[in-house]
Parts: sequence; C-alpha cells; structure tokens
Amino acid sequence: MTNRIQKLFNIEYPIIQAGMVWCSGWRLASAVSNAGGLGLIGSGSMHPETLEVHIQKCKAATTKPFGVNVPLLYPEMDKIMKIIVDEGVKIVFTSAGNPAIWTNFLKEKGITVTHVVSSTKFALKSVDAGVDAVVAEGFEAGGHNGREETTTMCLLPKVREAVTVPLIAAGGIASGRAMLAAEALGADGVQIGTRFAAALESSGHENFKNRIVNLGEGETMLTMKQLVPVRMIKNRFYQQVAEAEQNGVSAEELKNLLGRGRSKRGIFEGDMEDGELEIGQAASFVKGILPASAILNEIWEEYLESKKSLLKRQ
Amino acid sequence: MTNRIQKLFNIEYPIIQAGMVWCSGWRLASAVSNAGGLGLIGSGSMHPETLEVHIQKCKAATTKPFGVNVPLLYPEMDKIMKIIVDEGVKIVFTSAGNPAIWTNFLKEKGITVTHVVSSTKFALKSVDAGVDAVVAEGFEAGGHNGREETTTMCLLPKVREAVTVPLIAAGGIASGRAMLAAEALGADGVQIGTRFAAALESSGHENFKNRIVNLGEGETMLTMKQLVPVRMIKNRFYQQVAEAEQNGVSAEELKNLLGRGRSKRGIFEGDMEDGELEIGQAASFVKGILPASAILNEIWEEYLESKKSLLKRQ
Repeated sequence: MTNRIQKLFNIEYPIIQAGMVWCSGWRLASAVSNAGGLGLIGSGSMHPETLEVHIQKCKAATTKPFGVNVPLLYPEMDKIMKIIVDEGVKIVFTSAGNPAIWTNFLKEKGITVTHVVSSTKFALKSVDAGVDAVVAEGFEAGGHNGREETTTMCLLPKVREAVTVPLIAAGGIASGRAMLAAEALGADGVQIGTRFAAALESSGHENFKNRIVNLGEGETMLTMKQLVPVRMIKNRFYQQVAEAEQNGVSAEELKNLLGRGRSKRGIFEGDMEDGELEIGQAASFVKGILPASAILNEIWEEYLESKKSLLKRQ
Repeated sequence: MTNRIQKLFNIEYPIIQAGMVWCSGWRLASAVSNAGGLGLIGSGSMHPETLEVHIQKCKAATTKPFGVNVPLLYPEMDKIMKIIVDEGVKIVFTSAGNPAIWTNFLKEKGITVTHVVSSTKFALKSVDAGVDAVVAEGFEAGGHNGREETTTMCLLPKVREAVTVPLIAAGGIASGRAMLAAEALGADGVQIGTRFAAALESSGHENFKNRIVNLGEGETMLTMKQLVPVRMIKNRFYQQVAEAEQNGVSAEELKNLLGRGRSKRGIFEGDMEDGELEIGQAASFVKGILPASAILNEIWEEYLESKKSLLKRQ
C-alpha cells in the first residue's frame, strides 16, 4: 500500500512534518524521517551557516530521506540554495514566494521540489514552474498564511480539480481522522506542523510547548493582515496588534510594533506574553509533548482505524 | 442504510438545506423535502405573518418532514414561536442566540430541536439545554458566523469528542466529497446553504444566483467583526466596509454604513454592488442554477462514489 506521495519521497507514511521557524531543526526533522515520515528542516529562522550545520547534523542522524523548507522571500537566497545543493539535499519545499524563480535551478540539480500554496491560482503557477508536488495550506494553519482565507475544506478539492501532480493537505490536520478527511477531499498526503511543534524533538521552548498543550479552541487568530497574515496565539502581543488594527494603524506602525525577533522571543526563548507565538487552530488537538515517532504512529493508526470504521458504516 | 440524522428527521438523505435569509422560502424548503432531504424555511428575513404564510404553503406543497430555522436574536420571538406551534411545525433549527431560552418550550410541544453552534462550548450548552442534535458550523460558512473563526476541519472533531447527540456539519460543504470528509471528521449529516442559495427554487434574485455561479475562490470574506461577523461577496459595499474598518471605524459608524435592508437589497432585489451578498466559500463549487432535487442527487451520488473510491485505495 503505497501512494504517490510515499513513492515520490520514498517514505513509509504519507505524512510530512512542516518546516517551521524555531521548531524544525535537525533533531525534529531526523526524528520524523527515522520514524517513517518526511522530516523538513525549517530554514526560515536560520542564517545560511546555521542551516548548513543543521543539514550536516541531519545527514549524520538519519539515512532516511529528509528535506529543507525554504521561504523564498527571505534574504540571502543564493547562499541558501548553494548550501542545499552543496550538501546534497534531495528534497526542497519552497513557500512564501514565486515558484518560477528557483524551481528550474533545483530540478536541474536533481532535487525534488514541492511548493506550498494557499490558492488554486498559485497551485497552477507551481505546476507551470515544474514542481513535483504541491502543498495546499488552508486558513487554519499556523504562521504565515494566505490573504484569501480559504479553508482546507474548500481549498483542497479546488486544487485537486485543477492540478494532476501529487497533492499534500495542510492546515488543521492533527489527527488520523483529519488525514482521512483530507484524503476524501483529494489529498495524497498531509503536512502537519502544529502537532510536531510540540514534539519532544522540536526546538521550541518548553513554555511554548506547554502553552500548545493547554491551548483551547478559538485561542489562535489570523492577524497582521496589513503585512503578511500570521496565525498566532492570542497573548498580550496579539492584543496590542489587534487594538492597533482596530484603531486604524498603518502598515509602517505595525512593522514598528512587531519589531525584530518577535517569533524567536516567543517560540525559542519562551516569552509567552510578548513573543509572537505562531501556531495553527489544530493546537486544540495537542494533548501532550510526545516523541515525533509516537505522534506519527498515533496519527497513522487512527487513520487506519477511521478508514475501517467509515467503510463499516456503508 | 439509515443513520441517526436520517432517523431523527425521518428523511431519505442526511442532507439538510440551511434556512437562509431571502433564499429559503416555502418553495425551496418543500422542494428539498420532496426530494428526500430536510428543507428548512429561513424565518430570519420574515415578519411573523410572512412566516405563517410560508409554513402554510410548505405544508400544502409537501407531505414530507420540513422545518423552520429561527435566529433567536430577532425581534417578535414570542409571535414566531406561537406560529410555529400553532401551525404544527415538527422540526426547529435555532441559531444566533442562547439555546437555553426556547429549547424546553419547543420540546414540550413535541418539536425536535437542533441548535447551530460555532464552538464546542456552545455545543455543550446546547446539549445542556436539551437539544436533539447540533449543527457545527465552520468559518467558511456564509452569512452570520462565529467570532473564534474555527474552521469546519477543526471544529467538527472537537464537537464530536464533546457531545454524543447527532452532529450535523456545516460550512464549506457543497459536494459529496466534502460530505464524506465531514463524515470522516465525525458528522452524522450535513447542512448545506450556499449550493441551495443558487437552486432554481431559491427566492434569491437571478443576479445573485448568477453571481454565485461565477464566483471564484477567494471572492468572499468574513467582515463586520465589530457587529456580528458576516461572510459576504467582495463587492462595492464590502470594499466600503473594509476601508472603514482599516481606518478604525466605530461600531456605531459601521451600523450606520450598513443601514437597513442591505441583505434584502442584495440577495432579494439583486443589487450586486451595494447589497450585502451573504454566501459561503463553497460558492466556488457552484457551477449552475439547478433544481434542488438535482443538487441533492448529485451530492448523494458523489458521496457514494467517493466512499467507494476511498475503499478501493485501501
């Protein structure tokens, strides 16, 4: 029983761990890959030389396939791409930018390229650019998000209708039941961030992981829409942003309020009030800090169980 | 093959047509009920005496079960409830208000009561109030919506975990594939608004129906969050609201901008620029103006097909 995503990445489960800022270093990525999923190093919060070290440590920690997530709008893209090629990374997930710029370059080096989109329009652009697969990420996802606010339930079937490449669902998926729903909507695999942000091997701060575990429904919000929309936990920093937005703040003022290093301060350093705590709505499903392998197994077993019970009802 | 929703309402398909303002009169409700679903008259846009006429005409047009949707925050609630009881309506869906106020009254009259919620907290309150079923409605739904912005993908499994009564999924469901996804997430049935707003028997204006048919992904937005959040089409009126909100408008000013009769002007009278055009994200799946019976059949057949093909992949 292998599907297109399992074949494309040569992995046991069609489950990809999202490359998240301040959480997805080599420890998390190699743990997920060793357990049969696809681990991704999140380069979004790394200087090029840091990324280089993480790739090297990941190669030392696993013989299984792993990849790197690259938000294309970050600076020093030439350096990052050179490191990826030089270190022999075989899988790259690009996001937050135009897929036309780097896809050819990577493909020519024999690298498998997947682009993350929040709309059908960009899924089509990605296919035009020559990607091997797309991730369709809905409004419920944590961190940076699309402006159109299309949810996973509405986005997936539209992207499935529009493109024939393997399709990975993201946004709101934290369980085997949600994985089955994504399959019903046309996905070949899932990308999961929030659950893995709270994994034992995540480099997120303990305070952050504990906050995720205790987070209730409705405690995240998509905000900062004048800059790049971001889903985060409703803490004091969020309240400041929300108030400023209600009072008609300019994009420039919002930039100043955000300042520098907000997500590091929250996710990596554990400042629960004044940090930017990027996480998805699915946080309400996280019930403990578990090893990545246990998360993978739980999701996969629940997926198989849910499928069996769905078919029994027929 | 009958499940709890089919049994509760004594219907052939576990598909409920949402009670929508300016669309769901007796024509639409009776057409859906005659075709084997559950039709709901939407009382939200009706004076009590209008509702009375619609119930009478619906009774004349179908011998099958049908119901009335009642947004509890509307005025003249005593009159509306008296008409519902006097006319012998057997099924009521309440929404937009506290389920504790009217559930007992209706249950004592032998009426089956379902409450629409956008959070697990209110699902629990509804069960405490004694409802027979709940509708869990996600962020992607059209019209009035919850403040927490929880999507159908994230809301359904949480409500399913929390309550044991039959569960109806709403928000973003316009196809058999989405119906199957909702079942995977724990739903016993689905409530569909957007697809039926564009049905032949909907009392929405032809302009409105044609606009739905031509609506692309990302062309609706949840807005007016300072009053009651509403999902609507991005037309000129929406742009005015969005600009006012970006400039720090007060709730009072927003109320004045909205004025009276905006949704009637748009949905019923066909003013596509200055009317309030309430519709869900699922509008991007609507491809034509069809009879309610054809919509029901298409969704049901696709649901069965999707289930079969999901099974084959096992």
